Amino acid sequence: MKKLLNRQLYLHARPQGIPTPEHIHLREVPVSRPGPGQVLLENLYLSMDPAIRGWMSEKASYFAPIALGEAIRGSTLGRVIESRHPDFREGDHVVGIACNAWEDFSVVGGEQVYKVSTDNGFPLNYHVSIFSAVGLTPYFGVLEIGKPQLGETALISAAAGACGSLAGQIAKLKGCRVVGIAGSDEKCRWIVEELGFDAAINYKTCGDLTKAVADAFPKGIDVYFENVGGKHLEAAINAMRVNGRAALCGMIEQYNDTEPRPGPTNLIQIVGKSLRLQGFIVSNYFQHLPEFFAEMGPLIKGGKMKWEETVEDGIENAPKAFLNLFKGANFGKMLVKIGPDKAV
Amino acid sequence: MKKLLNRQLYLHARPQGIPTPEHIHLREVPVSRPGPGQVLLENLYLSMDPAIRGWMSEKASYFAPIALGEAIRGSTLGRVIESRHPDFREGDHVVGIACNAWEDFSVVGGEQVYKVSTDNGFPLNYHVSIFSAVGLTPYFGVLEIGKPQLGETALISAAAGACGSLAGQIAKLKGCRVVGIAGSDEKCRWIVEELGFDAAINYKTCGDLTKAVADAFPKGIDVYFENVGGKHLEAAINAMRVNGRAALCGMIEQYNDTEPRPGPTNLIQIVGKSLRLQGFIVSNYFQHLPEFFAEMGPLIKGGKMKWEETVEDGIENAPKAFLNLFKGANFGKMLVKIGPDKAV
Repeated sequence: MKKLLNRQLYLHARPQGIPTPEHIHLREVPVSRPGPGQVLLENLYLSMDPAIRGWMSEKASYFAPIALGEAIRGSTLGRVIESRHPDFREGDHVVGIACNAWEDFSVVGGEQVYKVSTDNGFPLNYHVSIFSAVGLTPYFGVLEIGKPQLGETALISAAAGACGSLAGQIAKLKGCRVVGIAGSDEKCRWIVEELGFDAAINYKTCGDLTKAVADAFPKGIDVYFENVGGKHLEAAINAMRVNGRAALCGMIEQYNDTEPRPGPTNLIQIVGKSLRLQGFIVSNYFQHLPEFFAEMGPLIKGGKMKWEETVEDGIENAPKAFLNLFKGANFGKMLVKIGPDKAV
Repeated sequence: MKKLLNRQLYLHARPQGIPTPEHIHLREVPVSRPGPGQVLLENLYLSMDPAIRGWMSEKASYFAPIALGEAIRGSTLGRVIESRHPDFREGDHVVGIACNAWEDFSVVGGEQVYKVSTDNGFPLNYHVSIFSAVGLTPYFGVLEIGKPQLGETALISAAAGACGSLAGQIAKLKGCRVVGIAGSDEKCRWIVEELGFDAAINYKTCGDLTKAVADAFPKGIDVYFENVGGKHLEAAINAMRVNGRAALCGMIEQYNDTEPRPGPTNLIQIVGKSLRLQGFIVSNYFQHLPEFFAEMGPLIKGGKMKWEETVEDGIENAPKAFLNLFKGANFGKMLVKIGPDKAV
């Protein structure tokens, strides 16, 4: 094996509010060797996920915080270049969700990653985006928590985002009338004209969001897919119908807050309308990846499910790509491709 | 039939904030006669329920607002004195939940009330308290939404109240460690020493409620029974464990608010901990009254389930009894007995 250097992005300072390039630095470190049961991966794609912002804070969320000086934890797709786990061999492609790091080479326990097929006609990167967390999240959030029924209605927040755009299409597939909220006219056009949403609300120009949402749902909302929080959640609760279900996937609005942000003022409606608000994280559903792939694979292949991906090139551009998530600048899923060209 | 006069409490003015005697006035009106399918009841017990405060506001909740000048809508137990419905005859005792009014005589559709047995060894008034909404609510809230498992933990707010005191005992029956929050040392002693709660928190003297709740649950909360809202809900969410369930039964803290009150600042934890917050109203479960009675009847009879009832006497005292609900003055369920002595 050639001598390798591992370029690695690490947490240099804890962000208060929106992270800047100051918080994520690049360094070169020696490549670690796998211990028993571990594999050494050469990472090919890094997944840029808003949740990582949460791990950069001192306070623990469902994952432990990233320590200062620690590599930025994340999901990657990589190729096994050395295996000390019986289930993997050199050349296997694997995905690790929230267990690898933003670096050229990761060492990880074999039980933390899963193998992906390279001969099913899909680009490799699909396995760390649409066929991974970003697809699983809206699929199980909408279906298992939202439980949309034919003829019902659904509201999707961050509807031009990676999860939201799929959530809306999945609700459409199940026969719902679907309205999305997004932050620009261009995004609103995209979700209606390209993705088939029934209507869209530009929250930056609509004035009172609560009124705009209520106007868009004369008979109320049955299913809400929540990515934003705050005023979005308040507007949704206000318009939800009796027995409505809200799948709480994230609250990106709050990830960069430096002060706690008060919640919606209308939670009492949860009681009166018998609403169910249910949070979830995608790892709750990992064991169902095969059934997800079985239903979504043909839809993706047949062009029935549209989605966007932005791929940046080079590990040195990962911080910028990550920061763009919080500017609402990108369409769809953000990946960073890091090539197999770092052997020295 | 003798000529009857109907004493009736009606909404004289809409309260802003806590209602006062000014908002509920007494008048005498002629007794209405039942139409086809209706029955005429002589009311014997009026149930005093916090939810009625909501119906006094202009804004509709899950029930329409009570109109100005309209009799105060509520739940009563009465005796049929004239029936034009095939299922009822004179002398039957019936309960109507949220469909009768605070008055001596109510006319109501036969399909809106249900018959209760007078020969099962229970005092008549039990059928409009423990064997009605006040029992059904904690029973189905805890069991169907909270789904407590042996060895789990439960937090009960308003734990010395009618619903809360039963919710805690039901969670204990299912093998949970149960902590209650109440508003006086006397109430705290009562729920621990008499009802068998494992611990109690006096929210008026405990200092930081979030810290007190966290300290009371070193391993976190699995089931939360919510009656209060606001800081109580925030403290509960903060201490809830992964996959915790909150049954949202009411938010009495907010019923008298004149301004919307911001919600908890930590709703993001619903996502990270995969929490489920589910509101409900008791009428969702009316069809399950028989199974409830089958399980709870023997427990009540055997003294395994303790509960308190405060019975005021005379319709003229109903406003005072109702206002006391919001002062935290009474233990357990509040009823008003109105006698069968108004024939003139």
